[in-house]
Amino acid sequence: MKTLPTSISRRHFLGSIGKIAGSSVMLKAAATIGLTMTVSGCGASNASEQPPITPTPNPTPTPTDPPPAVNPNPRPSDWPANSGNNQTVTILGSGIAGMTAALEMNKLGYQCTILEATARAGGRCQTIRAGDTIEELDSLQSCQFDNNPALYFNPGPARIPHHHDLLLGYCRQFSIELETFTNDNRAALYHSTNAFNGQPQLARRIVADSRGYISELLSTALNQNALDQALTPGERNDLIEMLKSYGALTANSNYTGSNRAGFEGQENTGGIGRDTPISPLDLTEILNSDFWQYQLSFVETIDQQPTLLQPVGGMDKIAKAFEAQVADNIIYQAVVTQIRKTDAGVRIVYQDQTGSDVTVESDYCICTIPTTVLRNIANDFSPAHQNEINNFGYTNPCKIAFQSKRFWEQEHNIYGGISWTNQNITQLWYPNSGFGHDQGIIVGAYTFSSSAGDSFSTMSPQQRLNPGITQASQLHPQYGNEVHNGISICWSKVPFQLGGWGASTANILLTNDENIYFAGEHLSNLQGWQEGAILSAYHAIDGIIGASA
Amino acid sequence: MKTLPTSISRRHFLGSIGKIAGSSVMLKAAATIGLTMTVSGCGASNASEQPPITPTPNPTPTPTDPPPAVNPNPRPSDWPANSGNNQTVTILGSGIAGMTAALEMNKLGYQCTILEATARAGGRCQTIRAGDTIEELDSLQSCQFDNNPALYFNPGPARIPHHHDLLLGYCRQFSIELETFTNDNRAALYHSTNAFNGQPQLARRIVADSRGYISELLSTALNQNALDQALTPGERNDLIEMLKSYGALTANSNYTGSNRAGFEGQENTGGIGRDTPISPLDLTEILNSDFWQYQLSFVETIDQQPTLLQPVGGMDKIAKAFEAQVADNIIYQAVVTQIRKTDAGVRIVYQDQTGSDVTVESDYCICTIPTTVLRNIANDFSPAHQNEINNFGYTNPCKIAFQSKRFWEQEHNIYGGISWTNQNITQLWYPNSGFGHDQGIIVGAYTFSSSAGDSFSTMSPQQRLNPGITQASQLHPQYGNEVHNGISICWSKVPFQLGGWGASTANILLTNDENIYFAGEHLSNLQGWQEGAILSAYHAIDGIIGASA
Repeated sequence: MKTLPTSISRRHFLGSIGKIAGSSVMLKAAATIGLTMTVSGCGASNASEQPPITPTPNPTPTPTDPPPAVNPNPRPSDWPANSGNNQTVTILGSGIAGMTAALEMNKLGYQCTILEATARAGGRCQTIRAGDTIEELDSLQSCQFDNNPALYFNPGPARIPHHHDLLLGYCRQFSIELETFTNDNRAALYHSTNAFNGQPQLARRIVADSRGYISELLSTALNQNALDQALTPGERNDLIEMLKSYGALTANSNYTGSNRAGFEGQENTGGIGRDTPISPLDLTEILNSDFWQYQLSFVETIDQQPTLLQPVGGMDKIAKAFEAQVADNIIYQAVVTQIRKTDAGVRIVYQDQTGSDVTVESDYCICTIPTTVLRNIANDFSPAHQNEINNFGYTNPCKIAFQSKRFWEQEHNIYGGISWTNQNITQLWYPNSGFGHDQGIIVGAYTFSSSAGDSFSTMSPQQRLNPGITQASQLHPQYGNEVHNGISICWSKVPFQLGGWGASTANILLTNDENIYFAGEHLSNLQGWQEGAILSAYHAIDGIIGASA
Repeated sequence: MKTLPTSISRRHFLGSIGKIAGSSVMLKAAATIGLTMTVSGCGASNASEQPPITPTPNPTPTPTDPPPAVNPNPRPSDWPANSGNNQTVTILGSGIAGMTAALEMNKLGYQCTILEATARAGGRCQTIRAGDTIEELDSLQSCQFDNNPALYFNPGPARIPHHHDLLLGYCRQFSIELETFTNDNRAALYHSTNAFNGQPQLARRIVADSRGYISELLSTALNQNALDQALTPGERNDLIEMLKSYGALTANSNYTGSNRAGFEGQENTGGIGRDTPISPLDLTEILNSDFWQYQLSFVETIDQQPTLLQPVGGMDKIAKAFEAQVADNIIYQAVVTQIRKTDAGVRIVYQDQTGSDVTVESDYCICTIPTTVLRNIANDFSPAHQNEINNFGYTNPCKIAFQSKRFWEQEHNIYGGISWTNQNITQLWYPNSGFGHDQGIIVGAYTFSSSAGDSFSTMSPQQRLNPGITQASQLHPQYGNEVHNGISICWSKVPFQLGGWGASTANILLTNDENIYFAGEHLSNLQGWQEGAILSAYHAIDGIIGASA
C-alpha cells in the first residue's frame, strides 16, 4: 500500500460530511445510520431496520415541550386485572401495533373495535405469494411466482433480532415456527461502481483483509512503542499477541493475507483446494471503497448482529396469528374519514365497504395510522399534535423480488445473507430457507436512501424491473438470464401506508390528545421494527389505564 | 485501563508457548488450531472442525518419501464413462468416504461391495433420537429423549460450511432439506474461570469492546503520526474515518462503549430500553482472558465463517440418503479381520453376523477404516504404510447432550450458536431449529483438547453428567434444575472408530499399497469434515481409475 498514489478519489458519504460540516455533524449522521451511536444520552432513534440515509419527506420538528414522565417500559404484567371495566376503545389500524393493543386490552376487559382500511390485517407485516396482489396508488400487480409455499416475498419487515423479546414472546405464545435469518454471509458480495474497477468483491476478503490490516498497523505502532503512554508493558505485549490471532498475522505481526479470505483461484467456490491463501486486497482500495461505511459494521449493530430470525413460510405468519386472536374485533375495509373528540370520549367516522358513512363512539381511541395518512384525515387534534403529524418524516423504501433458479447457491455457494452495491438497488437478499431447492425468491432491491427509493417509486412496476436486472447484473452476470416473475413495492405509494417507517423523533405524539392515544412503530425507539410497534402499543395502553384508573 | 496493575496473570495458551518456545512454534500451534495459518506453503491440515489443541495419541511421523504427483483435485467429471469395466472393489467402511466411493464407482461400472462393521451405515455421521443407543467399549447408553423429531443430537459432524461444494452438491442431488447453523451468536456467553471473576460475559460485549479498543488505539497512533512511514497522509485520514465506523468510536476517535455491546441493565434480554449503552469492559481484563485466542477469531476462519448449514432433522439425513443410493452394495455387521494382497488383487476376510469367517476377493480395495482400528487388523501392508498407520494420531472429542426446557431462549434470547468456557466441557451448543418449542436438546459439552476429552472418557457415561452439569452451571445457574435425559459420547471409545478425526499429516497413506487404496476424512486436507471424506474418496477412485486404465 505504500507504493500507491497519494491522491485518492473520495466518495465517502460520511467522510465527505465530516470534512464539510465538522465531526459532530458526521457523528450525528453516523448515528442516524445506526453504525456508531456511542454518545450516551442521544435521544434519537438508533434502531431503524435499515440506515435511512436521508429521512423523507419532512424534517424532524424541533420539540417544543418535553413529554411528561411516563413509565418508559410498561409491560402487560404492570396492568391490573379488569382495569378495562368494559370501557370502549376504537383502534385505528390492524397492524402489529393495533392488534397488540386489542389483544392486550381485551384481556383487561376493554371492549375493542379495530377499524382496518383494507381487507387484510397486518399492515406492513405481509407476505406475497402466487396470486397475491400489491396495490400502489397508481398500479396493481399480481404475483406471478409459481404456486409453492417456499416461494414468497416479505415486502415489509423480514427479520427479527434475537433480543426483540416481546415479539418473540408472542411468536412463542402463538406457536409460530421460526428459523434463522442471515445478515452476514461471507460468500456474499460487496460491490461499488467506484472501487475495485467495479468488480464485486467477496465479503470474506473485505472482512478478513480489513481486520488483518488494522491488526498489522496497530501491531506496528505497538512495536514502535507509540502507545506506551496508553498501555502498560504487559498490556502492550498481550495486545501484540492478541492481534496475531485477531488479524491472522504472521509471527512477525505482518498481514500477508489469510485463508480466512479464501484460497487463490477459489474465490467463488470456497476452499477445497487449500494451497495458497488468496492475495490480500490493497488497503488503499479498501479505504477507497465505501464498504467500510456500512457493510463492515452493519452486522455489528445491536439490531443486526446475530442471531436473527424469521417465521418459517413468511412474515405474515405473525400477522395471521395476531389476527386469529383479535379477529372478532376487526372491521375490515373501514376507511377512517373523521377523528373527533366528544365530551364522553371519541367519535370516529369511517366509510364502510359499501361506501356508507358509519359512526363509532368510544371512551378512548388508539390511532396507529401513519402520520403520512393521518395528516389528511379530518380531526380535532390539538395544534401541537397536528403540527407534529404534519412534519413527521417517513422513509420511502422500495423492494423488488424475482423468482429464479437458485444460481447463487448452485454456482456461488451463497446460502442466505445479503450482497451490497452502491447502485440504487442497494441490496440483494438471498433466501434463508428452501436451501437446495431448484427455484427461490431473491429480493433484488431493498432501497433505504431517499434518492434510491425515488429512482424506483417514480417508475411503473414494470419499468422498475429493468434497472433492477441491469444493476444486479453487475454482481451476478447471469442474473438477467435467470430471474423472472418480478414484483416490486414502493412503500411511499402504498395506500394507507404512504411510507416505509418513521424517520422523525416523536415527541408530542408520545402524549395523548385528550382521549386519543397514538401508537405505531414510528412512535417507538425501535422505528421500523415490529418490536417497536408492540412497544408503542404498550405505551398507549399504559396511558389509557393510567387515565381511566 | 491505565490505572490497573502492570502485573497481569498470564494463562494464555498461545502466549505461553510463544514465550517458552519462540514465535515459530507459536505460529505452528496457532496454525494447528486453525486461527491464523497465514504462511503459504504450509502443508499441514488447517481445517479441523475444531481446534485440536493436542493431537492424540501418537505424534505425526516424519515423512520418508514425498508422495507421487497426483491430480490434486479429481472430480467425477474427470472419469471416463464405463472405466470400471466390471472390475471389483471391496470398500471397507460405510461412512461418507466409503459410500461416496461406492456411489461414484457404481456409476463407472465397478462392482462394489461395502463391508460395514456395524448394523448402521454412516459411520460418525449419525443422529441420536429417542431409543437410539450409543455404544462404547465398556458401556451402552439408550437415549431417553422424548419421542419428538425435533429432539435429536448429532454426536459426530454437526455443521456444513457453505463452501463445502461436494457435500452440498450431494445434498441437493438427494433433496436433503438444509437450514442455517449458527456459530456466532452475540447473545451467547464467553466464560473463563480465570477472568472477569469467573462471571460469564455476553459475546456481544467482548466482540464490540475488543473491536472498539483496537480501533481507538490504532486511531491514537495514527493521530500521533506514528504510522506515517506506512501510510500516505490520505490513507491515514481515510483510516481514521474508517475506524470510527469500524470500532464505534466517538467523533474524537475515543471508544467510550457502544450500543453494539448492549444497554445498561439489559445485558441478557437485549436492548428494548435504549437509554445508556453498557459500559465497556476493561481492556486489561479482556487481554487477561483467553477469549481472544479462539472465540474472537473462531467464526472468522474459513470453515467456521457464516453461512453454515445443517440438515433439517439431523445430520443422519445425509447418511441415510447416501445409504439409499448404495444399500445394495452394503454387507452389514461384517467385521474385517484380514486385509491381504493377492496376485490378482486383494483378499478380505471378515466375520459375519453369525461369527463365521467369510472371504471376499476383488481387484481393488478402498480402506476407510480409521488407523486407530486398522493398526490391529491382520494385513499385508508395506512397512511404510504400516508405520504411518501405527503412528497416525486422532483427536479424542467427547460430547454430552441433554434434553431441557429451552430456558436459553425463554430467559436469555439465545437462539442457536455456541457459548464457550475454559472448563472441560469447552462449549455449549444451543439448538439451531425448533425455536420457540418448549423442549430442546442442548449439547452440553464438546471437547477438543486431549485433556478435556480424557477427563470425560475415563468416566462412565453416568459419571460424565455430573461435571457436565456443574461446569455448565457456571454459565447458566439454572442449568442443573432444567436439564435431564443426558447422554454422551467419547469417540476414542466408540468401537470401530476409536477416535474423533485424524490429527496427523497424511503422506504414505495418500499412495496406494499395490491394489489397496486408502480413504477417510483423516487422509484429506479437510480433516474432521464430511467434505474431507468425499475428497479422500475421490482421491482413491482417481488412483484406481489411473491404475486400471
